[in-house]
Amino acid sequence: MHSLNDILQAKSIAVVGASGNPEKMGHTLLNNIIKGDFGGGIYPINPKEESILGKECYKSLGDVPGSVDLAVVCVPGKLVRDVVDEAGKKAVKGLIIISGGFKEIGNDGLENEIVAIAKSYGMRIIGPNCQGVNYTGNKMCATWPFVKTKGSIGVVSQSGTIGAEMELLAEKDGIGVSCFAALGNKSDISEVDFVNFFADDPHTKVIALNIEGIREGSGFIEALRAAAQKKPVVILKPGRTEKGRMAVASHTKSIAGNDRLFGAFCRKYGIIRALDLTEFYDFCKMASFVARPGGNRMLVVTSSGGAGILATDTAEENNIDMILLSDGLKSALGKVLPPQCVLSNPLDLTGDARAERFANAFEALCKDQSFDILLPIFGDPIPGAYEVTETLRKKTKAAVVVSYLGGGADQEAEVALMNANRMPVYPTPERAVKSARAVLGLLR
Amino acid sequence: MHSLNDILQAKSIAVVGASGNPEKMGHTLLNNIIKGDFGGGIYPINPKEESILGKECYKSLGDVPGSVDLAVVCVPGKLVRDVVDEAGKKAVKGLIIISGGFKEIGNDGLENEIVAIAKSYGMRIIGPNCQGVNYTGNKMCATWPFVKTKGSIGVVSQSGTIGAEMELLAEKDGIGVSCFAALGNKSDISEVDFVNFFADDPHTKVIALNIEGIREGSGFIEALRAAAQKKPVVILKPGRTEKGRMAVASHTKSIAGNDRLFGAFCRKYGIIRALDLTEFYDFCKMASFVARPGGNRMLVVTSSGGAGILATDTAEENNIDMILLSDGLKSALGKVLPPQCVLSNPLDLTGDARAERFANAFEALCKDQSFDILLPIFGDPIPGAYEVTETLRKKTKAAVVVSYLGGGADQEAEVALMNANRMPVYPTPERAVKSARAVLGLLR
Repeated sequence: MHSLNDILQAKSIAVVGASGNPEKMGHTLLNNIIKGDFGGGIYPINPKEESILGKECYKSLGDVPGSVDLAVVCVPGKLVRDVVDEAGKKAVKGLIIISGGFKEIGNDGLENEIVAIAKSYGMRIIGPNCQGVNYTGNKMCATWPFVKTKGSIGVVSQSGTIGAEMELLAEKDGIGVSCFAALGNKSDISEVDFVNFFADDPHTKVIALNIEGIREGSGFIEALRAAAQKKPVVILKPGRTEKGRMAVASHTKSIAGNDRLFGAFCRKYGIIRALDLTEFYDFCKMASFVARPGGNRMLVVTSSGGAGILATDTAEENNIDMILLSDGLKSALGKVLPPQCVLSNPLDLTGDARAERFANAFEALCKDQSFDILLPIFGDPIPGAYEVTETLRKKTKAAVVVSYLGGGADQEAEVALMNANRMPVYPTPERAVKSARAVLGLLR
Repeated sequence: MHSLNDILQAKSIAVVGASGNPEKMGHTLLNNIIKGDFGGGIYPINPKEESILGKECYKSLGDVPGSVDLAVVCVPGKLVRDVVDEAGKKAVKGLIIISGGFKEIGNDGLENEIVAIAKSYGMRIIGPNCQGVNYTGNKMCATWPFVKTKGSIGVVSQSGTIGAEMELLAEKDGIGVSCFAALGNKSDISEVDFVNFFADDPHTKVIALNIEGIREGSGFIEALRAAAQKKPVVILKPGRTEKGRMAVASHTKSIAGNDRLFGAFCRKYGIIRALDLTEFYDFCKMASFVARPGGNRMLVVTSSGGAGILATDTAEENNIDMILLSDGLKSALGKVLPPQCVLSNPLDLTGDARAERFANAFEALCKDQSFDILLPIFGDPIPGAYEVTETLRKKTKAAVVVSYLGGGADQEAEVALMNANRMPVYPTPERAVKSARAVLGLLR
């Protein structure tokens, strides 16, 4: 039997059902694989075309001159069985079957049949009825939308849309993903295979899982526990409410299960649970950038008193301890800050603070060990914010988490620098605090 | 006594402390007023310059040839008293005092003095120690950052940063604000004046308030109650926690007060309360676009099963009723949708749905009256999403709220169309549902 690794590390890909028509999925997939600079052989398969997107086209898999590791299949559902058989004869290692027309419309027989054929040849299947896979470690964008940026978040998602949105958010931040996989009907390869793969994948620092149900006996729980020992795991699992569970049942015929038990399981094994899509991305970003802080004591340093108060409320509501400044620290800060600053927590540098004042405060703070998390809030156009925070980060033992807002074009430039240098930065104080809280749930 | 209206409708503005140095606030302010295409006279005041940014410069307010309605003051704090006196002699109607150095550093005497001088001339003061005002209805960007887009959200904010971020979010969505005002020390004009002004301002459809405390006897509660009868009011008021209240006290020396009482007050008078910055913007956008739905019954129509489940959980957790489809409706939908669609709520059009399938579903739905809120979720690159939803909106009695995600470049184009046409659209299903819930709190 081949493994998921054989699919993700494919050296050659055939797109069965490739098309010259940009409206067709078979065009999008071929185009994305080419645009992504996949380094191996790329073979469009279509009996009616000579060449597509500059690549020589073959009538069938059997006609391809070299070997084919992976076949991406987007022909109509009723033609898939023959393609699978042909792939087996060609010694293909794995199939990504985009085509629908299987269990999702009650066509269980056909799906079981293709699984049996694939098995008889030792081939593995992702899908059918799925959105494909983007493994940036192998420059293999066998999915849509087109995303090329390499990163360290490994996303495996029941929902193509949720996974794609994660990719797009990471792309927008310039931090990318290591992988995006949308599982579809999971006739063979499931989240269990991906969790195991990600746990050992050198490109993946954080495992991001969107699941709807847990199949008993699938080995999923064991895989999760083992993976969470190796790297942070963030899960978005809806179905928290009665009608949510009903929706899960009609979407993927899976059982959402008891939500409280699942929450307890996550807490016990240091798995981070996101409750909405925003948290899902935010927490993955944080966990990919920051190790678990030593504790829950936080200090906020802000140019915006108002934003500092938003952070304070959120901290208190999320079991983060807003420390009281020691007299020694107040005195040290008082020596380097102008009189209008409020020597408290939040440490309010006031609205005319520029990078230099932050730098002075940071210098006084970096010797202190009374806090585990330091949250600078830049609440204005403040050029140089990244640089002074980077200097701080090299000197302090605290985990540094940033919020930057209200800063227009200067903010965009500084936030880009922060993201590029793996400094976690969020557009609201509340999201920064919640993300800091999330990584505290990791195992020590 | 002049009124806030005299300031916001100024026909001529002097910038006292205008500067040719782009690093200085006096340059930024003058530049933003000019860039914003303010239609009246603009007079830089600086004894050392001949002209700044192409405008003739005057040595003092008294030297300006015509009348001056508004003086924006950004000289050092210790020079402000003389400027106020000079402004009085020039018959200026109002002052926006950006300069600091007053009550915020314990200099109560100086602040009281300038207030007394202004009062003796009938002049009004915004500030001191404030971020100024942008009133797009008068093309008057006497603040920073520079934001020009006209819109219908009137923002008055204790925190300059929070208000500025609201402006920037509205600018990014292309929906703009009617006004942004950051109050600073509130020596004279306070949120009470702005609430009263916004309540009758034809440019303002929604009043967005960021406050930290309520001063007893200030007339604020009465103003709020009266305003909420006229148009939606959205409030972000931190200080929900003990340490949050302490932070409020050190930031603005105000009393956050009992949070439960404040929450009860909001519910009673149909005031929408936002609990974080994201909600603050989301709820204002929703309230500026959508009237109160007739009830809390929601139907979700989605191309993404997974995103539909996220919406379902959030609805259930926020007291929104996810309706059961009637047999009649199921049958009507079954006639126009392909068999893989799930005829339930969420109505799952499945991943290959394009605009046409949404249009077919909408056509069947627009005759139905079993729901008050319709949430289409476009979870893929779906061109034409705006157009089909606009057609629906014209035919249905339900409030239409949209979420669009996972759609890359197509999404950006469609979302821009939606925003431009006042169709509320959100980047996650959860934010869409919470925003729909928020406007249900409005008075009928």
